[in-house]
Amino acid sequence: MERTIPFGVIGMGSQGAVYAKLLNDSEGKHFRLAALSSRSEEKRETYAKLYPDVAYFVDWKEMVASGAVEAVIIATPHKNHPELATYCMEHGVHVLLDKPAGFHSLEVSRMNDCANAHSDVAFGMMFNQRTNAIYQRAKEVIATGEMGKLRRVLWTTTNWWRPDRYYSNSGWRGSWGGEGGGVMMNQAAHQLDLWQWICGMPQKLYAKVEFGAHRDIVVDNDVTIVADFGDGVTGTFITCANDPLGVDRLELTLDQGKIVIEGSGKTGSIHRLKMTESDMNSVMPMEQVVAFIQGKPLGDLCIVEELTCAEVWGQQHSILIENFAQHIVSGTPLLSPGVEGLNSLQLANAALLSAWAGEEVTFPLDEQRYLDALNQAITKEGKYDVMR
Amino acid sequence: MERTIPFGVIGMGSQGAVYAKLLNDSEGKHFRLAALSSRSEEKRETYAKLYPDVAYFVDWKEMVASGAVEAVIIATPHKNHPELATYCMEHGVHVLLDKPAGFHSLEVSRMNDCANAHSDVAFGMMFNQRTNAIYQRAKEVIATGEMGKLRRVLWTTTNWWRPDRYYSNSGWRGSWGGEGGGVMMNQAAHQLDLWQWICGMPQKLYAKVEFGAHRDIVVDNDVTIVADFGDGVTGTFITCANDPLGVDRLELTLDQGKIVIEGSGKTGSIHRLKMTESDMNSVMPMEQVVAFIQGKPLGDLCIVEELTCAEVWGQQHSILIENFAQHIVSGTPLLSPGVEGLNSLQLANAALLSAWAGEEVTFPLDEQRYLDALNQAITKEGKYDVMR
Repeated sequence: MERTIPFGVIGMGSQGAVYAKLLNDSEGKHFRLAALSSRSEEKRETYAKLYPDVAYFVDWKEMVASGAVEAVIIATPHKNHPELATYCMEHGVHVLLDKPAGFHSLEVSRMNDCANAHSDVAFGMMFNQRTNAIYQRAKEVIATGEMGKLRRVLWTTTNWWRPDRYYSNSGWRGSWGGEGGGVMMNQAAHQLDLWQWICGMPQKLYAKVEFGAHRDIVVDNDVTIVADFGDGVTGTFITCANDPLGVDRLELTLDQGKIVIEGSGKTGSIHRLKMTESDMNSVMPMEQVVAFIQGKPLGDLCIVEELTCAEVWGQQHSILIENFAQHIVSGTPLLSPGVEGLNSLQLANAALLSAWAGEEVTFPLDEQRYLDALNQAITKEGKYDVMR
Repeated sequence: MERTIPFGVIGMGSQGAVYAKLLNDSEGKHFRLAALSSRSEEKRETYAKLYPDVAYFVDWKEMVASGAVEAVIIATPHKNHPELATYCMEHGVHVLLDKPAGFHSLEVSRMNDCANAHSDVAFGMMFNQRTNAIYQRAKEVIATGEMGKLRRVLWTTTNWWRPDRYYSNSGWRGSWGGEGGGVMMNQAAHQLDLWQWICGMPQKLYAKVEFGAHRDIVVDNDVTIVADFGDGVTGTFITCANDPLGVDRLELTLDQGKIVIEGSGKTGSIHRLKMTESDMNSVMPMEQVVAFIQGKPLGDLCIVEELTCAEVWGQQHSILIENFAQHIVSGTPLLSPGVEGLNSLQLANAALLSAWAGEEVTFPLDEQRYLDALNQAITKEGKYDVMR
């Protein structure tokens, strides 16, 4: 057995507790739970009972200095993600950071600069849905070009229903200064990451955003993004957190067929044309063309491959932590490199900027312009200090 | 039996031939085929054999003057739709006009002015898909408010596949000066009409348009429209004519559920929540909220009603013609009033204008601005005279 990496968790809220449990269940894995950190002195006793051999720190910097951990999972509210991650990396501790990477693109770019300057420490993002075999297959099909080039992508991810109580129970949620955004920053951050992971980053985007739609909040709660990936490739991304009958459906159209993924990655199918669409256009016999236009099914011109995902929902985080640990132990490539947390955040930031400005926004994002716009919103809100 | 209206057909291309056949099959209907008109002298003999008792005119104005017809169906290329329709109405002949109403909003507005000034003649548009009982039910649900207000609409109508030969076989197709546009002007004109018929006209729209996408044409062939209906109601409309695996799927989200229509109106379902989404948000017990967020199905909180459409595809045009005839005979309300042809055309015009200008366009449409932009495209194309 190769060595195991001692992990600490920073931030013992509900998600931190989940990570502690996963880290403790380490049999056959390359990780183990070594320390916990929370500002709450009261939680010390609880965790002493749960994990008697695990050190507990009220000050997370003491945990970093203690030598008890080689790596941390940061599960604090995302407002201080970049600050904590930067500190840990600067002190030689590997960082697996919960999503989102931060509040705004500029601070996350600064964090990435730090990561690039400390290539001896590992840096990963907790984009757990990247472990899903169906999304991985979709990414592979596009990367290899086995079905030609991507032409269009439509992602409707509207099944993130949250009631007002979800926001009011945690005062910082649904605010500019507390959360930095709404459905794009929090719930749909996973799909924004998978979108760019599978399709690449767009060159430009336009967004129509309804702020506080059907909820007592001020942030984005109904979003339509139209993306331009260049070279004629277009994309649409629709999300909201107020549709109890919402769906999570991804449709990727390529030269040689279509990939459809439904139910947040639960089922998928590849519809592969026997000839490319370009060949259908140019060389398919006229009688076949006419029959098809008149409604004849494609029949055996298209082969359907059903995609399955063996993994159980709750396993994703554990798989991602193990990938991160194996990366430290033996250089296994990271499934979710930390610097890539910038991309989904930039998509969300650019969409807000586009909606505020009423115009298409070009990448690379003008990070200072977004920060200024965000700080305007925070100032108007009047509850939190501006960001820097 | 009430009296029957003698109809003429102007333009005996493939669609005109279909209308002649439908008009001739008049048993139990309020219409009959009385005359045909085509510039082609050669077709006279063909039609004399098919319809021996039906007058044939090479000059459509002679048909109008002959007194042989009380109503006409105009099935010529749409470039002269407004000119022909205006002439007929001014000469007291009822007009059922094939879609699209014209090339550009300004000329169609002028045609509508003429129709309004001649309220004694009937004016209808051949939007045959309005006869579909499923779309009618969707319109009714929104109009009555029985499921509350509309919140969001997404229409993906990408199943209009056409190869290059479709365009090259008729030189005028796929050009600015010959057809005035692409997939929005021709194929998706039906869905654009149903969209505004069911949801109303938006206040603003933004469009991303790929011109000539995957085809040897210059017009719109891949379109994403983001519409703002005001009061937080948003819409997305996606169409193209290059996807052999395309779909036609309409999703309407309301306060109290969702209507989904698939397969170009072949199947549909209403998902009706027992309480409105607003009540789910405010008064649903917390344990139900938590269970639902954690993935418990809505179960009996939602009742599903399947929608069916008894009508056969080819019957739509005949039903619409009979409605138009009954309107003339006995004042039955028109299913598809002629002046409403302006709406889908304005949506297409506004989408092109938005794409060219790279900005959101506000309704009412600046018709002169669109005409100027269209004429720029026609001039650049260099094959046709500009429009007026």
